[in-house]
Order: sequence, then C-alpha cells, then structure tokens
Amino acid sequence: MAAALVLRASLRLLPRRRKVCAGGAATVSSRAMASKTPVGFIGLGNMGNPMAKNLLKHGYPVIAYDVFPEACKEFQDVGAQVTDSPADVAERADRIITMLPSSPNAVDVYIGSSGILKKVKKGSLLIDSSTIDPAISKELAKEAEKMGAVFMDAPVSGGVGAARAGNLTFMVGGVEQEFDAAKELLTCMGSNVVYCGEVGTGQAAKICNNMLLAISMIGTAETMNLGIRLGLDPKLLAKILNMSSGRCWSSDTYNPVPGVMEGVPSANSYQGGFGTTLMAKDLGLAQISATNTKTPVPLGSLAHQLYRMMCAKGYAQKDFSSVFQFLREEESL
Amino acid sequence: MAAALVLRASLRLLPRRRKVCAGGAATVSSRAMASKTPVGFIGLGNMGNPMAKNLLKHGYPVIAYDVFPEACKEFQDVGAQVTDSPADVAERADRIITMLPSSPNAVDVYIGSSGILKKVKKGSLLIDSSTIDPAISKELAKEAEKMGAVFMDAPVSGGVGAARAGNLTFMVGGVEQEFDAAKELLTCMGSNVVYCGEVGTGQAAKICNNMLLAISMIGTAETMNLGIRLGLDPKLLAKILNMSSGRCWSSDTYNPVPGVMEGVPSANSYQGGFGTTLMAKDLGLAQISATNTKTPVPLGSLAHQLYRMMCAKGYAQKDFSSVFQFLREEESL
Amino acid sequence: MAAALVLRASLRLLPRRRKVCAGGAATVSSRAMASKTPVGFIGLGNMGNPMAKNLLKHGYPVIAYDVFPEACKEFQDVGAQVTDSPADVAERADRIITMLPSSPNAVDVYIGSSGILKKVKKGSLLIDSSTIDPAISKELAKEAEKMGAVFMDAPVSGGVGAARAGNLTFMVGGVEQEFDAAKELLTCMGSNVVYCGEVGTGQAAKICNNMLLAISMIGTAETMNLGIRLGLDPKLLAKILNMSSGRCWSSDTYNPVPGVMEGVPSANSYQGGFGTTLMAKDLGLAQISATNTKTPVPLGSLAHQLYRMMCAKGYAQKDFSSVFQFLREEESL
Amino acid sequence: MAAALVLRASLRLLPRRRKVCAGGAATVSSRAMASKTPVGFIGLGNMGNPMAKNLLKHGYPVIAYDVFPEACKEFQDVGAQVTDSPADVAERADRIITMLPSSPNAVDVYIGSSGILKKVKKGSLLIDSSTIDPAISKELAKEAEKMGAVFMDAPVSGGVGAARAGNLTFMVGGVEQEFDAAKELLTCMGSNVVYCGEVGTGQAAKICNNMLLAISMIGTAETMNLGIRLGLDPKLLAKILNMSSGRCWSSDTYNPVPGVMEGVPSANSYQGGFGTTLMAKDLGLAQISATNTKTPVPLGSLAHQLYRMMCAKGYAQKDFSSVFQFLREEESL
Repeated sequence: MAAALVLRASLRLLPRRRKVCAGGAATVSSRAMASKTPVGFIGLGNMGNPMAKNLLKHGYPVIAYDVFPEACKEFQDVGAQVTDSPADVAERADRIITMLPSSPNAVDVYIGSSGILKKVKKGSLLIDSSTIDPAISKELAKEAEKMGAVFMDAPVSGGVGAARAGNLTFMVGGVEQEFDAAKELLTCMGSNVVYCGEVGTGQAAKICNNMLLAISMIGTAETMNLGIRLGLDPKLLAKILNMSSGRCWSSDTYNPVPGVMEGVPSANSYQGGFGTTLMAKDLGLAQISATNTKTPVPLGSLAHQLYRMMCAKGYAQKDFSSVFQFLREEESL
Repeated sequence: MAAALVLRASLRLLPRRRKVCAGGAATVSSRAMASKTPVGFIGLGNMGNPMAKNLLKHGYPVIAYDVFPEACKEFQDVGAQVTDSPADVAERADRIITMLPSSPNAVDVYIGSSGILKKVKKGSLLIDSSTIDPAISKELAKEAEKMGAVFMDAPVSGGVGAARAGNLTFMVGGVEQEFDAAKELLTCMGSNVVYCGEVGTGQAAKICNNMLLAISMIGTAETMNLGIRLGLDPKLLAKILNMSSGRCWSSDTYNPVPGVMEGVPSANSYQGGFGTTLMAKDLGLAQISATNTKTPVPLGSLAHQLYRMMCAKGYAQKDFSSVFQFLREEESL
Repeated sequence: MAAALVLRASLRLLPRRRKVCAGGAATVSSRAMASKTPVGFIGLGNMGNPMAKNLLKHGYPVIAYDVFPEACKEFQDVGAQVTDSPADVAERADRIITMLPSSPNAVDVYIGSSGILKKVKKGSLLIDSSTIDPAISKELAKEAEKMGAVFMDAPVSGGVGAARAGNLTFMVGGVEQEFDAAKELLTCMGSNVVYCGEVGTGQAAKICNNMLLAISMIGTAETMNLGIRLGLDPKLLAKILNMSSGRCWSSDTYNPVPGVMEGVPSANSYQGGFGTTLMAKDLGLAQISATNTKTPVPLGSLAHQLYRMMCAKGYAQKDFSSVFQFLREEESL
Repeated sequence: MAAALVLRASLRLLPRRRKVCAGGAATVSSRAMASKTPVGFIGLGNMGNPMAKNLLKHGYPVIAYDVFPEACKEFQDVGAQVTDSPADVAERADRIITMLPSSPNAVDVYIGSSGILKKVKKGSLLIDSSTIDPAISKELAKEAEKMGAVFMDAPVSGGVGAARAGNLTFMVGGVEQEFDAAKELLTCMGSNVVYCGEVGTGQAAKICNNMLLAISMIGTAETMNLGIRLGLDPKLLAKILNMSSGRCWSSDTYNPVPGVMEGVPSANSYQGGFGTTLMAKDLGLAQISATNTKTPVPLGSLAHQLYRMMCAKGYAQKDFSSVFQFLREEESL
C-alpha cells in the first residue's frame, strides 16, 4: 500500500490503462516466435537454481544474476552468461524471470538504482515468481508498463523437489494476451500453469491457498490431538474424518500425526516439506492483504500468530505439519 | 466432569470394570436372536421421529416416549405403544434407543427419578444417539453397568434428510462384543455404522469431525472472501483451491459462496443444511472436552466464539456455511 | 450443567425457594451468638493450612479434615480435632469452611458417600472457599438447602502470602441474611469480604476478575514486546501506557517485563506470584461458564488457549506474567 | 516495509547517520529564536482544523494547505495564507506540521511530485502528527535528512475535543536535540508532549497504547457481559474489578456498560468518543508493525479482527466501547 503511493506519486500524469496495444502486441509476437533467444533469470537460490537449470535443459540460453556471486558460479560453468546487476540482465534479454525471497527484494530488483526497469527494453516480458504482497505486484506492473514492458506475477506452489523435477504449479496474474508467451517459458519449469486474472491475482491465489492450508493443517492437528486424548485411535480417527465432512488435504494427504501415513514429513520427524518459517511468511502476506482490503480473517490471523510463535519455539525449520507436535506437548509436573 | 464426580461418589465400592461377562454375554445373545422383539425409542423430535419410523418400517415394534405428548401421538396412530416415562419404556423393552437434545436431557432420561435405569432389565442394550459430552456418556455407561445393562454412545452425522432416507452415519462407542447387536438396529436407520472404540469415542469422533468441519468452513469463507476482494473470480478460486493443498470438504463439496456450486445451502440463501446453532452447540461440547483434557484447541476455540456471535446476529437458523455472508458484509459509510 | 441435572433429578418435588425462613433464622442467630464454638475446616493444602491457622489464632476451636493424613498432623499438634471424613466434621461443627482444589473435589466433599451433607446439622453454615464452576456452587446450595443447611460460595483472591498474613479478599455469594455470620469467620482470614449477590456470584466475580486479568496481562506482554521491537525503551513505554488509556493493573502494578518494576515476579525470574497452571484452571472455569451461558468471550477464550499452551512449554510453575517471556522468545536461525 | 525499500533504493550512497551536526544545530537555534515566524500546516480536517487554529491563537502566522479547497477557506478568512500544494508550504515556512489520515497520504504529502521535500528549505523542521506505520515515518525521516531537513513523528492521543481545547498528548519521535524546537509548537496544541526516542517511536508508542487499549476494552466488555449473565450486578462487578487485579482504564474510567458510569460514551448510546473505524485503523497499523518485526501479538491480532467485523455490522461510527453492545446481543429464537 505504501509502495503503491510512493510509486503512484510519480505516475500521476500517465494514463491508467494502456490503451494502444498495437505496438506492444507486435513486440510480443516477435518475442513469441524467437523462442530460443536468451532468457534472463534473477535470483538463483534454493528455488531459482533448479528452475533456471530447467530452462537451460529446454535449450534456452540464460542470462543470470544473483546478489551472491557464488550462486552464479555454477551457472557460468554450464554456459550461462552472468551479469553484474538486474539492469544488465534487462539489457541483454527481453524475457526475464525473477525468483526472490520477499517484497522488498522484488522492489529493489525491479525499481532499484540498478534495477531491471533502468534498462528494460520496450516490449519485454517480466515474470516475477517470487511470493510477495499482491499490491506490490500491481505497482511493479504499473512501473513496467510505463517503460513499455509487461509485468506478470507467477508465484509457484511445490517446493525444491518440484522445482528440480520441473513440476511446479504456477499461478499467473497479468494481461491475458501475454499468458501464452509466459506459459511457454513456465511449462519448462512446471507441469501446471494456471491463469488467475489481472496482475496480482497469481499472488492472491497463492496467498489464499496457503492461508486455507495453514488453517486446515492447524485444525487437523488440534482435532487429532483432541481425539487421541479422548481415547480415539489416530488411524481410525483419520479414517473417520476422511470419509466425513472434516476431510481436508491436511487430513487425507499430509496427515500431521506420526504413524498415520507413510511418506509424509510427519513420518520423518517433520523433516523436509514446507518449513514453518515459509508458512509464517505467507501468512504475514495474507495478513497484510487482509488489513489493506479490510477483510476480516479471524482464523487466518490466529494461524499467522501460531506459526509465528512456533518459529520462536524451535519449529522454524521443521515442516509446517509439526504444529501437531507443538500442540501435543504435555505439561510435565 | 462434574456429573462424573456426582455419579462416581455413589459408585465407589463397585469394581471399575465388569470382570464377569458370562451372564451378560448370555443375555446379549438371547437379545440378538429375538430380533423382532420391541425396541424402545425415547426422544421423537426432528431427528428421532424419522429414525423411529425407520425402525417400524423394518418390522420392529416400537415402545415410544417423548416429554411432549403431541410428539407421541402420530406413533400411537401407526401402532407404536406410547408410555409415560423412560422407566416405563425400560420395563417393556430390553433394547432402547435415545435421541435427545443435550447432555442434561440425557442425564435426566437415564438417571432421573423416572429414568431408564430405575427399571432397566438386566442385559438390556441402551444406545444413546444424542450428541453430548463424552464424559457424560462414560458416566452413564458406568451407571448402566451397575444395573447390569450395556450403554453405548452412537451419535449421528447427517441431518433430517438423512434420517428420513435412512442413511445416517452412526459413530459407535462401547464394549466391542455388543457392537453387532447395536449395528443390527442402527442399520435400519443408517447406511454407515462405524465402531470407534470404548464408550465415549462415538461422541469423541463426532465432536472432532464437527470441530474440524467448523474450522475449515470458516477458513474457506475467510479465504474466498479475501480472494474475491483481491480480484479473483470465486469459481476460479474454488477450482484452484480444490486442486491444491487448500482443498477441503467445505471448498469442494459444500462451498459457502453463492454461485460457486449448485445444490448446496449457499445456492439457496443458506436455508436447510446444518444450522448455525447446532454447530455452536457441538463446538461448545468440543470446548468442554478440550478444557477437561487440557488440550489446546486455539482455532477450535475461536471457531466456537465466531459461531456463538453469529447466533446473536441473525444467523442462528441459517446453515453454518452462512459464515461467508457474516464475514462478507461490508462497512457502509 | 451436567451436575445440575443429576442433582435436580432427585430434587424435583422440593419447593424451589425456601419460603419459611423463621426456623432457619433462629438457628442462624444461635450460631452467630455462640461465636467461639468449633469451626470445621476441610482441605488443609497450601491455602487451607494458613487459613485454618488464622481461625485458631482468633480463638476458634477447629475440627479438621484432609484427604491426606499428613496434612492433618500439624493441626493435631496445635490442638485441633482431626476427623476421618467430611461427614464426621459435619457431625461436630455447625460452621464449616472448605478449601478444595477443583469442582469434582467439592462435589465429593459435599455430596459424596461420606460427604458433609450425609451428617450435616440443620441450620449449619457451609462456606466453600474453593474456586469452582458457579453452576456447581448453585447445585451444592440446593442440596444443602434440602438438608436445612445454608451453603455460601466465598472464593478468595490473594495467594499463599495473603493467606498467611490474613489479608485475603473473599468474594461471597449466598443468602444475604447469612452474610454477617459468614463475615464473622472470614474476617479472621481476610481483610476484605465483599458480598456479591445470590449463591454462585462469588465464584462469578472471581472468575470474571481473573479472566480480565489474564487478558490484560497477555495484552500488556504483547504490547511491551511489540514496543521494544519497535525501538521503545521498556521503562519509558510502561510510563507512557500508565499515564494513558492503555493503563491496567498488569502494566502499572505487576509489569511483566524484567527491569521495569521492583518487587514483582518479573524482577525475580517469574518465581512466586500466581502460577500459570492456576490461571489456566480459572480460565477453564470461565470458558465453561461462558459456554453454558452462551456468552461470547473471544479474547478470554484465546487467553485460555495461550495459558494452556504455556503449561506444556515449561511455564506451568512460573508466575502468569511470564507470558512476556513466552512471547518474547526469538527465532534463532 | 515496501515503501522503505522503494525509498532506500535511491538512498544507497548516502551515509546512514548524519554525522556532522554543527550546521544543523545552528539552523535549529535560528529557528528556535525566531519563534513567531510562519508555521506551515497541512491537513485541515477534523483534527487539523482546531490544531491549526490553536497555533493562530498563540500568535503564529499559519501557511495552510489541504487537498480540499473548502477546508482552507475558513483559514483564509482569519488571515492564514493558503497555498496550492505542500511544496508551496515548504517554500514559505521552515516549520511545518502535517496531520493526515493515513500512511499513503503522508507519503504523498512528503515525497509526492508536489510534496514538501520538492521545495523544503535546509534546516526545516517537519513534524508529522498523523498516525501512520512507524516504518514509513523512518523512511520519510531519511528522505528529509537527505534534503537537509529534520523530520519528527508526533502522533496525538485525545480526540476532536482535546484538539479544540488544546490539551492533546503528543508522543514525539526524532533527533533529541530537536525536541525542544518541536515542543515549542506542540505545546500550543497539547498539554502533554512526551519524548519517546528516535524517529518512529512516537508512532510506536501510540500504536502500542491503542493496541493495549483495544484489548482491555474488549476484555472488559466480555467480562462484564459474562458476569451479568452469571447473575452479577454490573455496577457491583465494576466496583469489584476496579479494586482488584482486573482493573484497567476501560473498567474504571471508560466503562463500556450503560448505567455503570456517567459522562462516558456508554452513557450516551456510544456517541462521541473514539470511533470503531479509527480503532480498527490503528489496530491495522499495529498488525503491520507486528508482522514486519515478527512479533507475536495473538490478542492484538484478534482485537483487530473483532473491530474489523464490527465496522461491517453497523458499529463503524460508534465509540469503540460499543463492543460491549456488539457482544451483548442475544440470540432471538
């Protein structure tokens, strides 16, 4: 919201919606045809690294940048061009994917002093796969539009494993005419590319899913714990819930109680999976979006607080289903 | 908990567990063989009425009682014997089903001054289908055992429609050897009869399911509302959630947002379905069980409070999915 | 609620309100005049022990009972008569004070098989200083009335220190005409004896105060922690709050932040004071009362859950202001 | 947080802390001496209007601006100079006070295209009395510093009445050496000017106080409602709380229950006072600050949600103590 204003301040005299699309459309189709021209990739961390490698595997030359030089080295070795700044990437590639840890990083990479928009080419396609505040995505899209470029938000679901296997899900927000161009690249890294609507709705969809996921995971953990203390066998309780109206992904696919299912983090001391800190971050974004849109989210808000507390109680790096363990601990007298 | 103590006070000298089962078993098998002997039914309200009728349809003579004489009349007309008190029912039938609105009613019907246990026959099978505090079920079972009878808790899921159609789900707690005898009767009224464990676990299973249901329903409502305010189309958002980890029964089978699904209460002004007051009642039981077992249930607890508030804001008689509407209302300035 | 029903079942034919008070009043005044006749005391734990000693100091012969024989010994040594059961106490004293840990214990001591009411004398004054569910107090009062005795609830605030010093606060519920007789005894143990209304309102007042206390303590802890993280000096922040509308007993008299005040548990590693388990117990009673009266208490309910969680995270025996420390812990990466 | 980054992006090469203070100090003292030189005032709404008038009463020429021209008219009539933009104010006055409704407005007024910083004079003192995100205050201070000006945050407590009477409380954050200069102006409008620490801490103090206020108000409302339903007289309950550990400003000075106190909004149908929407706004700021600093604020967060819900249920314009009425409503069957 704040960034919105900051950016809006200098955008006052611009038309709110691009009305003339002819030039842009032309550029886009030239992009689409030249499909093996270089693709920029900014942010080579745990997720970005395997994503960029999948682009390379599909034959795309990659122009890479990361704020940590070491993260770039291995790309240099496999033939990617490494640059000195996001602006340099923008000079050399007209399709750029960014994968960054948080809203401030995204703002910096796009509109910072050596950011993409300082040297972006007209007609460029900018795809941000970071999970950030959708209000920021919207503002970045406006700034990009001002420079004649197209910005889309395309956050992912699925973790490092899915990134390696190339079967992430992308939730994409932005101008619908550009979706096919984005999809061409995203299908190299994901098996599922969903168009969600105007810019920001990719983020919105991701944030919404994860908020509901957190709520139902904590709910499942509370419920299983209560049932066990009331004398129910955990496997039987899970079975009953899963054939009843309490059924949810957290109960039938990712049950948080050790011994109920195989092949899930709860069967492996809550290692792997989706970390509690990451869930806390996404819930923080949901909270900010809810505050800004004046939407009451009482359970989402409490879920946020609970994951925030867990982070400080030794659960930060465990899978988010470890909330069962957190709630299960008993008073020792 | 309190009732537990009250009852326990006079139970001090009894053995805690029935050790001699021989006689009981003999009685049970005689019951099981004489399957078309009369069945008592106490509590002929919205749910009890169609349940008792289904017993009649299956050829069981019914000995009926309800605190409201009018509720009994229509049974008299169809050939059921109507009695003056629960004790009278117990005198004439050795299998009795009770379907009562709350814990105090159940206590009264079983151990009140003209309650079942005043005249229960040895070896009788007492099945309580009310939804009550599982701690009360346990105490009633102890009192019944003292009189040589067997008490099982068998609360239902499915509403009036399922009661009429005879496809309720029964969650049954009690001595395992008696489960078949109970099932014989319950299958006349339900399509699904699940054995949950020792007495009280039927209640526990129901309470647990409904607590998780309430949590995921409110979570779905919050999430859909937030998504809509962030610009997502509700049908599309539901579709995304349902193929992702946010999926739950409330999102994929009973979506609370008008226009997303057909044939659910949200498509019909939240009429029919499972009323908000009933959900508030079940959440109250979950809360009491959690307090008594010192189990933390933060989201379950907040869900209880929200349904409690809704009851006072005009939503008491609407389906519990109307929490979407409750949260959706916008500030008018 | 459940106990209510159990008890009410056998009370059906009794008049709901004692209409003839003449005899009772007579008995009461004979009690009041003979002020140094023996006083029964049941429950000689951490609180009951110093309370009973204060009665002795004021010249009252004490007839003592505790379920643990060791607890009685020291009273035998100082001249108190020790008995074998609550019933025995009732046989020898017509004024009895009980100080018990929980609702079930109170039910047992009053209406158990060797409980007070088995041998209570007509016109006896029974004062329960335990903190229990007010609905149970009401039922015990009805049972006592049935035997011609008067029951009053008189829970205390102030801990072991106040019990020793004889400056507890008693919140008293019961028939107003008996208040003076109760006060005569209670002033031996407390400096403040407040009449709250009909039976049960003593408990209600205590539960209400402690619920608001828990809420404002957690609120103070959250606020101080947030302020500190936003760069405020804790002493200065406390000063600002205390001269503003955020002021509360937890901020100005019992501040939970180490270093802000002297002579409070936060200045002494949260030792002493009012333990987290005790607060969790009182919040559980508030929760049960709220559920039974269908009163929405969203913050009270969440406060209960938080203290419940703290009990399982090593804070059970610390003062309840240690919620600051619980919330303060930081994520270590 | 987002704005922080946006701004920081262009601030990279600047020293993080002003190291040379000599020149600044000189400017300040010249400002301080020339005390009746004009003072700029931007934002002439419900609060700003009486504040600016109090400056005029104290003999300060006022250079005024508001985005709504009508708001300026009455100042023109009393001799204030009205300008066309915040930048114009900055050209004519080296001491400026701003009083704006929200973070985005403040960002716009300071760093927008015709904002104060476009034409601010070196050595100017900029005092923002708006209630905004403290992170934004910090960023605005950095931007001001870049232009050689000093920015302080000085949000107020006390409503329109206090603004008229000139007895607001100002909580001031910023460079300590400038505090006296700020205080000179602020004492014309307030009776209490508190120095809180570095820039942003004025906001932090206000947000903290209001979060604790909201928590204890809701807590008081819940508690009074529960007590009443348990049979306590509201006046008596308030009296008991106020002499006990549950005591807080909301119970002893601003009791939310009609009939308990005189001269408070609850005695006047919750008219006047501090509106629910304003409280919801401040709780939203607290929430954002807590999210950004990863501080768990479970009760603060739930308080925010409750006030958010109230805004949509017809309580938006009522005093925030109307939460008692909101929770009090009973289910009508």
